[in-house]
Parts: sequence; structure tokens; C-alpha cells
Amino acid sequence: MRATLMYSAGDVRVEDVPDSTIKNPTDALVRITASCICGSDLHPFHSMTAADGPARMGHEFIGIVEEVGSAVSTLAKGDLVVSPFAISDNTCEFCRENLQTSCTHHEATFWDGIADEGAQAEAIRVPLADGTLVKLPVAPDSALMPSLLTLADVLGTGYHAAKIGGVTPGSRVTVIGDGAVGLLAVQSAKLLGAEQIVLMGRHQDRTDLGRELGATDVVAERGEEGIAEVRDLTGGHGSHVVLEAVGHMPAYEQAVGVVRPGGVISRVGVPQYADAPIGFASLFGRNVRLAGGPAPVRAYIDELMPHILSGEIEPGKVFDATTNLDGAPAGYRDMDERTSLKVLINL
Amino acid sequence: MRATLMYSAGDVRVEDVPDSTIKNPTDALVRITASCICGSDLHPFHSMTAADGPARMGHEFIGIVEEVGSAVSTLAKGDLVVSPFAISDNTCEFCRENLQTSCTHHEATFWDGIADEGAQAEAIRVPLADGTLVKLPVAPDSALMPSLLTLADVLGTGYHAAKIGGVTPGSRVTVIGDGAVGLLAVQSAKLLGAEQIVLMGRHQDRTDLGRELGATDVVAERGEEGIAEVRDLTGGHGSHVVLEAVGHMPAYEQAVGVVRPGGVISRVGVPQYADAPIGFASLFGRNVRLAGGPAPVRAYIDELMPHILSGEIEPGKVFDATTNLDGAPAGYRDMDERTSLKVLINL
Repeated sequence: MRATLMYSAGDVRVEDVPDSTIKNPTDALVRITASCICGSDLHPFHSMTAADGPARMGHEFIGIVEEVGSAVSTLAKGDLVVSPFAISDNTCEFCRENLQTSCTHHEATFWDGIADEGAQAEAIRVPLADGTLVKLPVAPDSALMPSLLTLADVLGTGYHAAKIGGVTPGSRVTVIGDGAVGLLAVQSAKLLGAEQIVLMGRHQDRTDLGRELGATDVVAERGEEGIAEVRDLTGGHGSHVVLEAVGHMPAYEQAVGVVRPGGVISRVGVPQYADAPIGFASLFGRNVRLAGGPAPVRAYIDELMPHILSGEIEPGKVFDATTNLDGAPAGYRDMDERTSLKVLINL
Repeated sequence: MRATLMYSAGDVRVEDVPDSTIKNPTDALVRITASCICGSDLHPFHSMTAADGPARMGHEFIGIVEEVGSAVSTLAKGDLVVSPFAISDNTCEFCRENLQTSCTHHEATFWDGIADEGAQAEAIRVPLADGTLVKLPVAPDSALMPSLLTLADVLGTGYHAAKIGGVTPGSRVTVIGDGAVGLLAVQSAKLLGAEQIVLMGRHQDRTDLGRELGATDVVAERGEEGIAEVRDLTGGHGSHVVLEAVGHMPAYEQAVGVVRPGGVISRVGVPQYADAPIGFASLFGRNVRLAGGPAPVRAYIDELMPHILSGEIEPGKVFDATTNLDGAPAGYRDMDERTSLKVLINL
């Protein structure tokens, strides 16, 4: 079968790989119908060394179940399913608390933790299929497919930022980052009733989409200037909740600058740093809280899917380019050069 | 009048200073009847340079109002009052949200922000007296005085840790630090219904008091060994809520080690560091949250005082030594050498 491999920074190829097959009784084999490229895939695209490659890529997909292991009880051949980016049994104590990203099962991992599988491919072996996969009540050719694919990661991740940040009706929110997760954090904050949503981003086509998804204000400036502008927009004290959807240190510093005393910085951009300011001057003196982490998107699929099926939200708008599997390498380049926001891969 | 001054690390003296007097119409002049030495006073006792001294000391007191400014409306001469360690107008938008430590009034500050006043003294000028001071419904010779004095800081600070950490009935909690704040964090966690309270501390007389105040388990070990022991006590995954009542980096690292995925580290020990680990490996990967800061004790006095008046809690047990104002320098030494837990100063 064909699959996407990253050999090193900037070097992505689509090649023949051994066919994915059922290995364990709890596995399902899924023929992928739609996948995509994630902003987080750009981190290795910038920094991966040849020693770490070639690596199978992709952690977001929708597909059709082709075969199930003998212990799989909730899925059957022909089911259309979406997969979260984290594999989980959905029965352990953490899964029952809706923290599936901390599932204690020994097979639980993120997709990048399985060396010989990836979602930017023709097929994939899904461990713990009963716990991981969620059936979609539509046909494979549904026009809702792009929006439903965002349930695999970016919508659930933006929603996690807003939920764990405590966004409630009336909240004043700042979102840092105009990538797909930032934009869907905007949409999630709106869904949860935020009164003010300031989007910090520099790409006008993206911030225009942000306004469409619910941003009430856009701040293109960065650093001290950007912080000052957000403070002006928020009556001088900053936002109750800051959703940080980038992961680089300047974004964290911006979050510290625009958060209100007693407020929350909710991070869903994967931190590209280990240590950061949390002492008296940054967080402690103002009782600023910190939240966030990898989103347990499995927990949010049931909650979010009805909003998509009803047409209330259309998160698939973050896909501004569509390609096929052979177009994946060009998709990486386009996203890296910011000519594409997020690339959908139809198979 | 007589007052306590720190000249530099290790050098505390009681000397004559100019009498405190009313300066602004919103001031009250209070004759102090009881004060004490705080664990946080030991930070300058270890590190203060002569260039920063002499500094007036003390931020916890009970006293009798001797005079009020013309704009003070809720207090009168003769009232017995307790003061939080933070001065606030109790009317601004942050005070109304019960975050009096972020009061926006230009006179709002902590006591150490007023160079010519301190609570380890015979008298004190209290700015924003209506907002800051709280009347006590007992006589000055009440046996409850030590417990009521803890409302000025250590009880409210321990309670803040537990509250902002989200301790609720059934919570499993670890408290790091067996100083007065740590012990009252134990008591606060119990008051809020915690099911398990693991106290990490090395001084048996203190951890014995911790057990009396509500600790269900005590761990004397530190570092990796201490973390392993707490994990054993908590079914392998750590505590939902960790109350960090020390402020040094090893205590933070211990908190990271014993917190459960999805849990909260609530800090009330004043951080003696600026940067700390908050990346994927420490907090983010496990969705660990961070909370805490200077406690808005003003907000908690109304809530906590009835528990003291009814005898349900006796936080004054943290005072294991009593002296007079001239005994303050020896009190610092005793607390520094850990021969005293917390020293009460009767005037």
C-alpha cells in the first residue's frame, strides 16, 4: 500500500510500504477515505534529523472498517469511522474521567507512537478499536466529511482549550494563533458563549475566517505592541481566558501578557520548550492559572458531532486546499509556506 | 514607639521608630495586641543585603482601633480588628471577584510595600481601613486570639491553596511542606471534605500536628523516594490536588512528581524561582493544571471565622511559642533553626 514518510526536515515522500494488517484481536483494519496534514506535523518538518527517519506520518483520518479482530464487538466491516489522534481503551479510570490521552492500557499511545502506522496512507491498523473509533452516521460521500474529519484532532483540540480554560457564557477570551486549532478555538469559545473573542494572528485570510467563526476583534501585532492592544480592547486588565494554540515561547509570553489577574492560560499548542516563566512576576503574583495539554478528543466527539450534523458549526472551513495522497509532500510545503491553512487528503 | 527592623540577613532588631499616625482620611491607626512571625519572613532573613535594610517587618496582626480618618465609616475607636496581609479597598472589580490581592486602588499593596509600617510593632497605620480591616466579635483577651490571628495570613493562605486547587468531598490531596501554611492547608483540605490527605514533611513534631489537623498519611522522604512513596499511597497515579506550601524549586519538582494526570498543582509558597518546567514532560503531556498565588485572605475571613468561633477548627495550634515584642529577634532565630514552628508576639 501507499503511505507518507518523512525522511528528515523538509523531505516528505509517498512510497510503497507493507500492507497494514490485523495483529491483535482488539484491532481493526481501516481503509482510509480522508486524512489531512496537521500544524503539529510542521514541527518535525522543520527539525527532524535523518537519524529519526523515515517516519510514517499523519494522525487524523476517517475511513471504512475493512476487517475487525475477534475481540472487537462494536464495529463491523463497512462501518464509516473517525479516529481520535490518541488510541485508548475508553474503559480505564482515566478514560472514564474523559482523559483518554492518559489511558493506562499498554497499547494506548498517540499515532506517532506506532512506528509502522500513520494516517496519511491508504490503510491503517487501529489498536483498541472498540475504545478508539467512533462510528459516523453519514455516507462516505457526505458533504460534511471535512467538518467530521476535524473531530479527529483540531476541533476537539480547540474545544479542549476552551473547556479546560473555563470558557462560559460572558467570558472574555483571547486566542493566540490563527492556525486551524486557533481558529477552531475561536469557534469553540463562541459555542460556549464567550462574549468577547480577541484573535491574535497575522494572516488576514485566516483572521477573516476567524471573524466568520466568532472572533469579535483581531490583533495582528505581536510582542509588547500586541499585548498593549489586547489590554486596550479588554478594559486595561486583559482576558479572563487565553487560549494558546501555537506552542512556541513567544506565544506563551504573549499569553502571560494578555491574561487578566485571576485568569487562565489554556495551552493546546504542543510546547516547544521545557521551562518557562511561572514565578511571582509572571503567573503567581496575579493568581494566573495554567491549564491544557493533549486534547482527549475522544471525549468530545459525542458532544461536538451533533453540532456538525445539524449544520450549526462548519469546522471543515479550515481546509482551504484538497489533494490526494500523492499530493501530500506538496501539501506539507504549502502549509509550511503558509499558502495553505490546512490540507485535506482525499483517498 | 517600638518596632521590629531587619538590617540584613540574620540581623533583626527591635528599636524606637517614629510613631505611626493617620495620614489619609481613609486610614485607621491601630494599637497592635497580637502579631507573629511568618515563614515568608525567613526568606529575607536568609538573603537580605544591608543595602535593602533596615526594613520594617511583619504583616499579620490583631489590634484595637485607636483613631480613624474622617472618611472611615465602618470602624470606630475601640474596635478589635484583624488585618489581611494585603491592603485593599474591597470595592474595585477585582475585590468584588474576591481577588483582593489584585485590588486596583493606588494605595492597595502588601504590608511589605509600605516602607514605614510593619505589623511586628506597637502600632500601625492601616490604609483603606474600611476595605482592609475586619472586626472581631470577641474580647481582646479571648482564648481564641491565636486562632483568629491566623486569619491574617496562614489559615487563609492554606485555605486558598485548597480552594483554588479545587478540593471537594472525596478529593485525594498531597500537601508539600510542614510549615504553618502547609499544616493549615491540611486542615483546609479536611474542612473541604478531602478523603485522603498525604502530608510531605520531615519534622515529626510538625507532621504529628498535621495528623491531628487531618493528614491521613505522612511521607518524610523527599525527592524520587518521596515521590515513589506518595504514588504507592495513591494507587500508583498520584494525587488529584497537590498543595505546594514551600516555594523552593525542589518542592515544585516534588509536586510535579506526585500529581495525577489531569490534576492540579496549587502553589501558595512564594516561588523563589522565575522559570520552572511546564513543558510536555512535566505538565502538558498529562494535562496537569497549575493554580495559586498570594491568597486573597480578606475574601476568606467571613467564611472561616465562624469555624473558629464555633471551635470546629483551632488553627492557632500552629503557634508553638509565645513571646513579646522584645523577643522578636530570638523568634526569628528559633523559627530559622526549626526549634519553633511559628512564634506569636503578644503586645
